[in-house]
Amino acid sequence: MADEKLTPQSENFSEWYNQIVQKADLADYAPVRGCMVVKPYGWALWENIQQALDRRFKATGHVNAAFPLLIPMSFFEKEKEHVEGFSPELAVVTHGGGEPLEEPLVVRPTSETIIGYMYSKWVKSYRDLPILINQWGSVVRWEMRTRLFLRTLEFYWQEGHTVHATPEEAQAETRLMLDTYYDFAVNEGAVPVIRGRKSETEKFAGAISSWSIEGMMRDTRALQSGTSHYFGQNFSKAFDIKFLNQKNELEFAYTTSWGMSTRFIGAIIMTHGDDQGLILPPRLAPIQVVIVPIYRDDAEQSAVMPVVERVRQTLAETFRVHVDARDGLTPGYKFNDWEMRGVPLRIEIGPKDVEKNSVALARRDRPGKAGKSFISQETLVPAISEALKDIQASLLSRATAFRDEHIIDVQNYAELTDAVQKGWAFAWWCGDPACEARVKEDTKATSRCIPLDQPGGKGVCVVCGKSASEKVYFARAY
Amino acid sequence: MADEKLTPQSENFSEWYNQIVQKADLADYAPVRGCMVVKPYGWALWENIQQALDRRFKATGHVNAAFPLLIPMSFFEKEKEHVEGFSPELAVVTHGGGEPLEEPLVVRPTSETIIGYMYSKWVKSYRDLPILINQWGSVVRWEMRTRLFLRTLEFYWQEGHTVHATPEEAQAETRLMLDTYYDFAVNEGAVPVIRGRKSETEKFAGAISSWSIEGMMRDTRALQSGTSHYFGQNFSKAFDIKFLNQKNELEFAYTTSWGMSTRFIGAIIMTHGDDQGLILPPRLAPIQVVIVPIYRDDAEQSAVMPVVERVRQTLAETFRVHVDARDGLTPGYKFNDWEMRGVPLRIEIGPKDVEKNSVALARRDRPGKAGKSFISQETLVPAISEALKDIQASLLSRATAFRDEHIIDVQNYAELTDAVQKGWAFAWWCGDPACEARVKEDTKATSRCIPLDQPGGKGVCVVCGKSASEKVYFARAY
Repeated sequence: MADEKLTPQSENFSEWYNQIVQKADLADYAPVRGCMVVKPYGWALWENIQQALDRRFKATGHVNAAFPLLIPMSFFEKEKEHVEGFSPELAVVTHGGGEPLEEPLVVRPTSETIIGYMYSKWVKSYRDLPILINQWGSVVRWEMRTRLFLRTLEFYWQEGHTVHATPEEAQAETRLMLDTYYDFAVNEGAVPVIRGRKSETEKFAGAISSWSIEGMMRDTRALQSGTSHYFGQNFSKAFDIKFLNQKNELEFAYTTSWGMSTRFIGAIIMTHGDDQGLILPPRLAPIQVVIVPIYRDDAEQSAVMPVVERVRQTLAETFRVHVDARDGLTPGYKFNDWEMRGVPLRIEIGPKDVEKNSVALARRDRPGKAGKSFISQETLVPAISEALKDIQASLLSRATAFRDEHIIDVQNYAELTDAVQKGWAFAWWCGDPACEARVKEDTKATSRCIPLDQPGGKGVCVVCGKSASEKVYFARAY
Repeated sequence: MADEKLTPQSENFSEWYNQIVQKADLADYAPVRGCMVVKPYGWALWENIQQALDRRFKATGHVNAAFPLLIPMSFFEKEKEHVEGFSPELAVVTHGGGEPLEEPLVVRPTSETIIGYMYSKWVKSYRDLPILINQWGSVVRWEMRTRLFLRTLEFYWQEGHTVHATPEEAQAETRLMLDTYYDFAVNEGAVPVIRGRKSETEKFAGAISSWSIEGMMRDTRALQSGTSHYFGQNFSKAFDIKFLNQKNELEFAYTTSWGMSTRFIGAIIMTHGDDQGLILPPRLAPIQVVIVPIYRDDAEQSAVMPVVERVRQTLAETFRVHVDARDGLTPGYKFNDWEMRGVPLRIEIGPKDVEKNSVALARRDRPGKAGKSFISQETLVPAISEALKDIQASLLSRATAFRDEHIIDVQNYAELTDAVQKGWAFAWWCGDPACEARVKEDTKATSRCIPLDQPGGKGVCVVCGKSASEKVYFARAY
């Protein structure tokens, strides 16, 4: 609720985040350590995220399916790196129906193994390929330090798993989905992520190459917001996914996986939010326009409410609109409450507005008078369309400017160690994991990604001084 | 795949069912006993079911949220009947992150307990009520005898959980959701369910009253297809959900829950399917119209395919349409394949159709010439609209006629025992669980529901001869 002020970002960003998640009514703590309850307002945001992603998946030829939650423990032992990566994080079912199980079952932490097993049954010939399946669901990873949306024992996500006849096609899929995530993050979330390849150290357990989108939060820390992995034949060999190719030879297939989760809600909060609360990008906001009726007595209420209802009806055809008709709360309280929840536009309708056939329109992204205007009720629909588009664009350009101001092109190690205390360092790197490890030890910053956009040419590794052919982002990360 | 014939329904209905689920590509067996993989075609059907239900939930004021998968074991001990009902079916997580847990966690079999716990934190005053939350997800129940869609260890469903200030309002909610399920089943699924109250013996563990919709499958067995429960204060007392009422007194709230699952896919299969395969109701079918191009050589292919593509584009604006452009398969094979998958309408376009500017249109629900017509390409959209509406209505009226032919109004116990071998018995019943138990022991038939539509007046219990004020359906059930 909005009756208490948020801790300012500048004072304690972490505390600001924890407060906003609860005060904006997005999520709550569950009775099981590290688990969350996603409340209706948070879930409505997730549903909008799901729809925007799902639309993109289907437009690129993918279909949805559902694979079991419970996976035989032995499946995790089939791919060496995968088992090492996930073993410490497993939740294990040992009893079912009152009896101990012959083989323990794992609550899925990710589904490469069980989906790989099914694909080995389904794939016979190159005619069965590609398989382009996505799954929406939740997974469980036994994390030690948890935070709502950012890292929880159970989280909600989608995981795509595809099978291809050639490495080129599988690599193209990996890139296509990275670009899909990028397009979604930038154009729906107004989160100006950077896309690139993960280092060998940071890649997914079992992958040949991993790619990610990385966002810069308002405390300048990085948040990995979506990943896309190319497995080559690693999983097809572990799970025996073979097909008869066009030359009539048996060949192991080439697989990929890619995922995006409720973590992205954390990205939205920490990219756009301010000391008054959330600011939601209009394209994903559960409520795009809230209408607050203003009256002091029954007579004014009788004059105002029919206009409120008429305006609501007009807007509801085009926008996600809500009337705050709660009794016993002042307009000021309601304004604060909807600012906390990040609703992009607020309409106020009082007796004077009724007289003038107008409304007051307030923008969440521009506090005070700068964001307030008076609009004729006749031209409300185009005015709101315009305002929502402008807010969406403003959020993206503001976040992009913030990001670019906090990326420092560093020339040597001293500049790097300094840069990662106040932003991201963009640095030449030789690719040696030892250099990456030294940065982490000295600064807690990790390599975030080797971006697609490279300056070209050659440089000198800022850690060891050897020749380097690529630049990388180093940053402290969530 | 459609390359082998189905076992006819009349020969072995159960075998017919098992075959159709796989041959129509709806689902597959998972490597964990009793679990299923819902394949893309089956999941697309479920997505259409979800949308049709979700739209109805939201139109009646409900919102979605997400509660954790893992529930502390102790929560199941708080409501006496609930623990008795669910204890034998629990899957238990005893280890997390490599360590034994202090308290075991249950993979949710249903969420009354954990949601009740959260509601006790959220509800303070009558102003917080009602709470009208639904959750989409999966649950795990350790069933011994499983069948794809009908009874699986893990299944997909929605569960609504609501809290109210008065018993009347909670009871009205229970009825509203029963009616919502009824409306969905009849008008979207073309499944002519009967709605009514469950007997004391058959009601949900912990409920004061349970209501259900019951469908008659083509082997005349009943399938419970959705339930709605009124809990009174049972769960609010167990989980301490109290509110300050308008008189400023603390009062326990009144709760409900209601659910519908992937079982309904079983209902669709067994209500409409025939010996050629599935027949899907057009409103839920993932593909409403399939286009099969017909050609013998490259020249014919070149003439046909542009028309196929033009027709596809025209139809795609209004319908869910798919072109079967697979190489190396005969049209006959494709016809069988799409009949197996239950696509309501098939369009064939060959060289003669191109010449005549027409297409051949075949209805899945009327095999052979009776269901075939030739339509001008100019009037295709209205013709298909009309045909889909007619198929939807025909499926419902056919299933309703079948149901009514197999309901026998029985006057005595001999008639009852005979009736439940070949249909449902509709019988006066005194309400004594002993009479119900005798029927079950003698015939394996159970009381399905005490329908809302009652003849009125009084009768004589067909089992014990005592006075009876209500009639009930007895049937063998899935």
